[in-house]
Amino acid sequence: MSELIFIGLGLNDEKDITYKGLEKARICDRIFAEFYTACLTGSNIERLSEFIGKEIEVLERKVVEDGQVILDAAKAGRVALLCVGDPMAATTHVDLRLRAFDLGIYTRVINNASILSAAPGLLGLQHYKFGRTITIPFPKEGFRPESPYEILAANKDRGLHTLALLDIDAESDRLMTANQALEVLVNLEERLKKGIVLDSTLVAVVAQAGSENPVVRAGYLCDMMKEDFGPPHHTIVFPGNLHFMEVDALVKLAGAPAGISN
Amino acid sequence: MSELIFIGLGLNDEKDITYKGLEKARICDRIFAEFYTACLTGSNIERLSEFIGKEIEVLERKVVEDGQVILDAAKAGRVALLCVGDPMAATTHVDLRLRAFDLGIYTRVINNASILSAAPGLLGLQHYKFGRTITIPFPKEGFRPESPYEILAANKDRGLHTLALLDIDAESDRLMTANQALEVLVNLEERLKKGIVLDSTLVAVVAQAGSENPVVRAGYLCDMMKEDFGPPHHTIVFPGNLHFMEVDALVKLAGAPAGISN
Repeated sequence: MSELIFIGLGLNDEKDITYKGLEKARICDRIFAEFYTACLTGSNIERLSEFIGKEIEVLERKVVEDGQVILDAAKAGRVALLCVGDPMAATTHVDLRLRAFDLGIYTRVINNASILSAAPGLLGLQHYKFGRTITIPFPKEGFRPESPYEILAANKDRGLHTLALLDIDAESDRLMTANQALEVLVNLEERLKKGIVLDSTLVAVVAQAGSENPVVRAGYLCDMMKEDFGPPHHTIVFPGNLHFMEVDALVKLAGAPAGISN
Repeated sequence: MSELIFIGLGLNDEKDITYKGLEKARICDRIFAEFYTACLTGSNIERLSEFIGKEIEVLERKVVEDGQVILDAAKAGRVALLCVGDPMAATTHVDLRLRAFDLGIYTRVINNASILSAAPGLLGLQHYKFGRTITIPFPKEGFRPESPYEILAANKDRGLHTLALLDIDAESDRLMTANQALEVLVNLEERLKKGIVLDSTLVAVVAQAGSENPVVRAGYLCDMMKEDFGPPHHTIVFPGNLHFMEVDALVKLAGAPAGISN
């Protein structure tokens, strides 16, 4: 038995795992987990381990990317890698799966909720009206990419919504807040001046998705930048052209000011 | 207690529900389900009902869209609506949630896997390289929309991947196959002639996502149109420009011919 099962943990806490995922994890010889592509913000490793009823070995980024520890274990038995969200949303996990394939290890994916579909849904925005997703990175010396701004501009130009995922700095254990991400984009606006990230721009934020009380807010950028959305993960959506039901949803579910239309 | 909980069932069978969803369903006074926006193809209502341990009332499309049965029950107690995939991906459910809001009914969403993120992941394609999602409808007298073809063309033009969801005809209980959907697009190609849906076009198909052995295939359109992908749901992805790891994934995970590059 050489088997590597990628098990999605979903969005928030230990009970977001699927029943199928739970059953699979319980029959594995070894269970690994990684929390650097995303964190299980509503739980912790002790609770997760107790819930599954087995020891979980948490791996650092470099160990997952190197892959050898996981692949060696999977060659010798049945192994699970627990991943927050949907497992194959992260390129690292696809890479690991391909390497397992090369070694003749049977792989299996247990899907789960991803913020990619959860955030639009919680805001009541229609998934087929989204353009390309962007990621906002922490600004670093010599790394201030313009592409998130350019993609946002291209989506807006076509009337499409834009989902923005926010960076994680695993080394310093920092998760980017929506406020920080908006600041990154405001700085890009000052440089590139396309008039798409202004005080009057409609912005929506989802935080703590999957928890009992997710934060779901929409409003004008100048107001949203001052708001406290609570603990991460935060996700931003920049609405494009809105259907009347989407307007209704942003007002009722996300507290957007009446009269928004974008 | 006036409460309406939208519980995602995930992709394939009764064990794809999350542990949280299962717990919530079990404490509800009444449990409704709808299977017209998507079907739980790897299970049936008897198995689902037995697994949850409660009676489930399956509602027809018109009853869900009308909403009164669900809203009346939710005004009087704690009610679940079970939905395949992630609950808020369907506009009908957003609409129902907004009407519950208007009636002062507390609503809650239990997220789950959606084909929107599962299909790209199973193919090893990177989510941030997807353009707008399209839906291929069954052709009907007087309804042969060109928009799916036009959006596909716009995505291709920008080098982006395109996810295509396939129609469900709930009244006649027909789920569109990938083969039927490709034929719809080939017919549009004959009319609109942009050269984007040709025999040599690379096409990827995911079927039975979430099951023990999902079908994950990629190849040239002329070959794919003749393939049997087994029972629905089928989902199609039209790859745009491919990263070398994506090429590797399509060859290894989806059996694409070596030498693809698009």
